[in-house]
Amino acid sequence: MSLSVQKKKILIVVMDGLGDRGCKELGGLTPLQATDTPNLDWFTRNGIAGTCDTVDIGIRPGSDTSHLSILGYDPLEVYTGRGPFEAAGIGLIGRYGDVAFRCNFSTCDSDLNITDRRAGRINKPDTTELIKALEGMRIDGIEAVIKEGTEHRAALILRGAGLSPDVTDVDSHDLGPLSWSKGETPEAKFTAEVLNKFVNETYKRLKDHPVNKKRAANGLLPANIIVPRGAGSFPNIQPFPEKYNMKAACVAGVGMIKGICGVCGLDVIDLPEDCTGGSDSNFVSKAKAALKVLEKYDFVLMNVKAPDVAGHDSDPMLKCGVIKRLDEMAGYLKDNFREDLVIVFTADHSTPCSLGDHSGDPVPITVYTPGNVKDDAVTFSESGCAHGRIGRIRGKYIVPMCMDLADRTEKYGA
Amino acid sequence: MSLSVQKKKILIVVMDGLGDRGCKELGGLTPLQATDTPNLDWFTRNGIAGTCDTVDIGIRPGSDTSHLSILGYDPLEVYTGRGPFEAAGIGLIGRYGDVAFRCNFSTCDSDLNITDRRAGRINKPDTTELIKALEGMRIDGIEAVIKEGTEHRAALILRGAGLSPDVTDVDSHDLGPLSWSKGETPEAKFTAEVLNKFVNETYKRLKDHPVNKKRAANGLLPANIIVPRGAGSFPNIQPFPEKYNMKAACVAGVGMIKGICGVCGLDVIDLPEDCTGGSDSNFVSKAKAALKVLEKYDFVLMNVKAPDVAGHDSDPMLKCGVIKRLDEMAGYLKDNFREDLVIVFTADHSTPCSLGDHSGDPVPITVYTPGNVKDDAVTFSESGCAHGRIGRIRGKYIVPMCMDLADRTEKYGA
Repeated sequence: MSLSVQKKKILIVVMDGLGDRGCKELGGLTPLQATDTPNLDWFTRNGIAGTCDTVDIGIRPGSDTSHLSILGYDPLEVYTGRGPFEAAGIGLIGRYGDVAFRCNFSTCDSDLNITDRRAGRINKPDTTELIKALEGMRIDGIEAVIKEGTEHRAALILRGAGLSPDVTDVDSHDLGPLSWSKGETPEAKFTAEVLNKFVNETYKRLKDHPVNKKRAANGLLPANIIVPRGAGSFPNIQPFPEKYNMKAACVAGVGMIKGICGVCGLDVIDLPEDCTGGSDSNFVSKAKAALKVLEKYDFVLMNVKAPDVAGHDSDPMLKCGVIKRLDEMAGYLKDNFREDLVIVFTADHSTPCSLGDHSGDPVPITVYTPGNVKDDAVTFSESGCAHGRIGRIRGKYIVPMCMDLADRTEKYGA
Repeated sequence: MSLSVQKKKILIVVMDGLGDRGCKELGGLTPLQATDTPNLDWFTRNGIAGTCDTVDIGIRPGSDTSHLSILGYDPLEVYTGRGPFEAAGIGLIGRYGDVAFRCNFSTCDSDLNITDRRAGRINKPDTTELIKALEGMRIDGIEAVIKEGTEHRAALILRGAGLSPDVTDVDSHDLGPLSWSKGETPEAKFTAEVLNKFVNETYKRLKDHPVNKKRAANGLLPANIIVPRGAGSFPNIQPFPEKYNMKAACVAGVGMIKGICGVCGLDVIDLPEDCTGGSDSNFVSKAKAALKVLEKYDFVLMNVKAPDVAGHDSDPMLKCGVIKRLDEMAGYLKDNFREDLVIVFTADHSTPCSLGDHSGDPVPITVYTPGNVKDDAVTFSESGCAHGRIGRIRGKYIVPMCMDLADRTEKYGA
């Protein structure tokens, strides 16, 4: 007899860069081992635990490849580089086949020699006005969509038939003449030609723009040209909601994480202002936002960036403090737990303080839902979770595992 | 901020055939469980531990397939048989495409009927003299390179275009007529023809050789023909130093292990005389040699054969004694530890005394480097290591895992 069981919702809490190695300052313990985490331990004690290689054993994941894995995609199959995710991070979400570029607002002379790569570190509101002059461009049948990022940064998408990402940068990464884009294949040659025409057109439209005239009058450098680099194709990704038949959203502060989730078809939810994406972010406020989003969605990925920042800063004491506050966040989620929820606490990768960068050390993972199996893991840490029955898994198995615990999986066979 | 971190070196200590099953003579314990190993336990307590299926779960590895795995190659993809490794083990390291054979110096009559397969167990210096007469042979455009092994053994490589390993043995494995080599495909037919011509030519060159005349005069059997068997292609293996960007060497006494390492592009280091490769080998002397080699190399694989010998001899008490001495060796490595080292203690396979042969039981593994995560495993044994956070891994992940701990791995993604 198969009971009619209510499907559960899924919340994955990604504590960015949480894993670590032994820290001298902590007597050889990791920040997680050294910090009392009663709430994370509660989830571990009452749930199942394990360790996770988000991409694979020994691979040092970036935030992009690891989040793809956590969303159930194998980056070794779908990853095409960071460019598309950065474009998506500022809201420029392309489709499979689109080619994305990172761009700078720059300053050039009338021979198009670059005199300042960042146009005097131009910022909003000037960029917002200037970008409007570049909208709706169409070159040789190709649509050019541009959007401003932070400060002098922008992203560009070329969209249309016959494009290739195998083109060189227009950005010479130096002052002086531009290194006009080139390609080898017919598609790449065409793409380079369109890209070069786009750059020329930005100069035409920006050089006498009122914003630049005003900047000149104020002794500021004009932003009179857009210079692209870092071509990358949008990956061929089956949208998450279609792949898993769940309405899905992400709650994150960092642009690239929002970009990855956006490219995977998750709705990117605006955050309360106190969720900054930095060490000062209000984690409880973010957890509250995630629970609110779960009222309307089946699946939420929530990213908290702060532990990664502490790891990159090589600051074990800061990381311990962040962990203490993450545990308070876990306490909020425990106290406000919805019974129809499968919750996951894990990290996208380790960022050991002794390294100041990502490492391939596996990260702890704990999964809890009412009525699941309790295993013998009792503490949430790199070592404590290793006692659990999840064992050592790859990140791409997290969603399938949760789908089953959420009773959203069809039987395979009879 | 990414710190400028010094890359570490890697030492993998392979205790050959170390794993075991419960022994009646030891009250149901394995030799490792029954023997006090304070030094191996020290590494386990201060490092991370797990269990390892060198090839895969349930597969009984040979020394060749297991060492390929431990060096980071998947034998299911690259293994082509033992022949090439045995040839390489006596210093005849071929290239991809070369076909290797194991050979005997044999005795035959004038109709080429074999009368003694081992030429009266001929040995050096006679074989050394005889082999010289066979050097520089070229048959139908194919180079035939031969080298003597121990006693009546030798190895042959055929090198040139259009060869195939799919040929039958000339060796009939019995007295009487030779079973001339055959092949099915055009390449195999050609290879068999070259091989048969080679055998005929060895008879021509050896039958009246002064060494054989002298042997006859002394009542010894002449070694007047070379009889090949066990054709095998050299595998298509990316050299280890290129694959992992490490200067790599092996410290081993056994021919086949040296052969495997040689084929994988590791430098094979000559050992002190008291490192015999047998049960009487001086393990501390070998460890000392390994540490010396590490001064000039980034990676060293060290193989200690003795526990395998005790397992094949079905002698649990001998195996316990060997383990006691292996622990002393671990003590030497602990007392002379270099801070920039990632050290691995593991086995290539289990050789249970109750079986007298290899089994597929997973082997214990412990990895230690200063500043790594300490997990909760405290004893080095088949059961003790299962508490550690390495979990259960396949052998081919050992090098990638160590590469990351040695900070030699590039980030995958952004």
